[in-house]
Amino acid sequence: MSSFLSLIENKREGRKHSPEELRFLVEGFATGSLPDYQGAAWLMAAYLRGLDPDETLWLTEAMVRSGRVVDLSPISGVKVDKHSTGGVADTTTLAVGPMVAACGVPVAKMSGRGLGHTGGTLDKLESIPGFSVDMSPERFERQVAEIGLAIVAQSDDVAPADRAMYALRDVTGTVPSMPLIVGSVVSKKIAGGADAILLDVKCGAGAFMRTAEESAVLADELVRVGTALGRRFEAVITDMNVPLGSAIGNALEVREAVEVLAGKGGARLTELAVDLCARMLVLGGVADGLDAGRRMARASIDDGSALAKMAEWVAAQGGDPTITDDPGVLPLAKVRAVLAADRDGFVSSVAADAVGRVAVALGAGRARKGDPVDASAGVLLMARMGDPVRRGDPLAEVHGSDPRAVEEAVRALSAAMPVGYDAVTEPPLFVRG
Amino acid sequence: MSSFLSLIENKREGRKHSPEELRFLVEGFATGSLPDYQGAAWLMAAYLRGLDPDETLWLTEAMVRSGRVVDLSPISGVKVDKHSTGGVADTTTLAVGPMVAACGVPVAKMSGRGLGHTGGTLDKLESIPGFSVDMSPERFERQVAEIGLAIVAQSDDVAPADRAMYALRDVTGTVPSMPLIVGSVVSKKIAGGADAILLDVKCGAGAFMRTAEESAVLADELVRVGTALGRRFEAVITDMNVPLGSAIGNALEVREAVEVLAGKGGARLTELAVDLCARMLVLGGVADGLDAGRRMARASIDDGSALAKMAEWVAAQGGDPTITDDPGVLPLAKVRAVLAADRDGFVSSVAADAVGRVAVALGAGRARKGDPVDASAGVLLMARMGDPVRRGDPLAEVHGSDPRAVEEAVRALSAAMPVGYDAVTEPPLFVRG
Repeated sequence: MSSFLSLIENKREGRKHSPEELRFLVEGFATGSLPDYQGAAWLMAAYLRGLDPDETLWLTEAMVRSGRVVDLSPISGVKVDKHSTGGVADTTTLAVGPMVAACGVPVAKMSGRGLGHTGGTLDKLESIPGFSVDMSPERFERQVAEIGLAIVAQSDDVAPADRAMYALRDVTGTVPSMPLIVGSVVSKKIAGGADAILLDVKCGAGAFMRTAEESAVLADELVRVGTALGRRFEAVITDMNVPLGSAIGNALEVREAVEVLAGKGGARLTELAVDLCARMLVLGGVADGLDAGRRMARASIDDGSALAKMAEWVAAQGGDPTITDDPGVLPLAKVRAVLAADRDGFVSSVAADAVGRVAVALGAGRARKGDPVDASAGVLLMARMGDPVRRGDPLAEVHGSDPRAVEEAVRALSAAMPVGYDAVTEPPLFVRG
Repeated sequence: MSSFLSLIENKREGRKHSPEELRFLVEGFATGSLPDYQGAAWLMAAYLRGLDPDETLWLTEAMVRSGRVVDLSPISGVKVDKHSTGGVADTTTLAVGPMVAACGVPVAKMSGRGLGHTGGTLDKLESIPGFSVDMSPERFERQVAEIGLAIVAQSDDVAPADRAMYALRDVTGTVPSMPLIVGSVVSKKIAGGADAILLDVKCGAGAFMRTAEESAVLADELVRVGTALGRRFEAVITDMNVPLGSAIGNALEVREAVEVLAGKGGARLTELAVDLCARMLVLGGVADGLDAGRRMARASIDDGSALAKMAEWVAAQGGDPTITDDPGVLPLAKVRAVLAADRDGFVSSVAADAVGRVAVALGAGRARKGDPVDASAGVLLMARMGDPVRRGDPLAEVHGSDPRAVEEAVRALSAAMPVGYDAVTEPPLFVRG
């Protein structure tokens, strides 16, 4: 039998692992029989030497098998899920879920705890008073069957290897590795039980993948591996150089999702929500094509069915459904300050990564695993890239709990939203549709 | 201030560390503030990305400073030390130490616990009844001053970073890295307090460095870094394709060292002992040149002064000095078996690495840190590469405690000492003198 040490040495020398070796390793991560220091050494060797397409597939398969695979087959229809590789002001999941469910396609989403610029989907949901993201796989299946929508925390027995690997990657500088990202995303999605998965791969300054080329490689790898493991996977690549919506922060993003469903959302975020919803409706077999899907998606907003579905869903998970009428029940920051334009001109850019870091510094996201998040903290953008502004116009509102931190955030934000003399336009939303 | 994570990421990207970064990292290893998993990730990144000459020097300097540096300046004369990078049947230290001391140059050697083919020098010494390798730096200094020779276990406060790093390298596949080896060897030697250090870099199948080129690079790096840190370093490169002496195993090697000092040692081992002694006498300033040094070294054997010094030294460290008259007081294995030639011919080769593995399997060395060693176990070679033998002639004697293990060892040894029809000669002892 192979030893962990010999596996590390093999990868260090750039040799290819066998499926058995990867299973042995993944089991080691999942059960804890692999000591952290050996796991860390292997992760760095894999980061620097790479895993080839076969190894990436075998790794992912072993990660799926490391725990429970949720069985949604008793629920009729094609169950769909979506996943974003992480962006700034990306609250689409909270809008798209109710839209898709309102159109009759069951949405079953298990989500991991976020580590990025803002909290993950779970943190956003937990900013809703009473909302619970923890439930058993059985209740998860029942809720999907009953109301067509559930978004919950991945339970401990689903893809346990990924949880162990991610925690270690996070502290050993081995997160941005293509094969390790593929293994993590695809194994979680497959174990979550959905039949079809739509991936929104982010591209740009605020994302892991900075260029269109890198994003395309990641998107294609995710689809290749997911498809090889027997599910329908589809990927779009969207811009993350500028924040997608206007809200960065947990309660602020919930509020923005409600606005989208009420037909009052920003154009860019609404466009993406409609597009993603349309694709999921096609995947789910209820729309004939993208155009039909888009019409259904827009109708779910216009006729109020998506907003009603959101209220039903929030209530089903113990949350206060009145947020869909009155966002005032969401927590609001005590300290707020406005960043104003210091001259006439145009907003030259809104640096997604910098805005994300400001939000984390305010407490909206986590610098380290286990850190608490401040549900009300964040940034509300009041101008977008290319907008003409006059000196004194508000560019953004900073929400926080500590006056000094808010003051610093305003200063940092001013560098992330420079005002210049040239008219500019935002980069296109779709990098690859 | 840098964080451990940012240092890992820097090295992962192949960036050069600053002296401050390396000090921070080494302090982390020494104090335990660096978690094992981050240490492991950095070690693998350093293994695969490398450290440049500056970084190697800064790393080594930081490792020296991580603990106590023994002060031997109160002792008059040039204090010398020697270090071998590890070989099979390499018992030169036990012979050279008394020879050099008998010639009037103080020898101060701190040694680490061995992990290799046979136990380290400490394991060999501990096979002498009563011998203790543990003493305070103060007693170490006093013994060097009084009798001119002490060989002890490196105390916990000397180069503590190296101890932590070595333990982690051993289990993470990061041992055979040139800059990490340089840091480990040089930091220990400098912290040990000697003024001049002679390095015996081994080259061949039974050593880390397999080729003359690799060995030369390592030797030059060791000398460059050691010299830059203010001590005299000198290196020879010697063959380790065939075992140096005839004994592999702790008590067996002590016995062989006594034979060398009594003028009855094998030619190759005696030649190296005389040569290393000569170089240390030149370094110590008591011999004008190598030829004069060699004459003094041989004289210390011929006039019995080296053997007398060994007895004095063994007694000073609590051991039974009668081993120099009567090796019968050393532990002897209960189970012994002879490997005999299965045909007439010449011994085609004696594979040092394979013989070493046989000795470890018999219990003479450690497969893992903390494993106990069997003082009496090992292999006694009775023929050397190139020796003419007749069918039935003894090639080697295997010593152990378990009849089945001894039987297996004989079988494994027969593959390591094939008898062929062609006359061959041993490779030259000196690869670079």
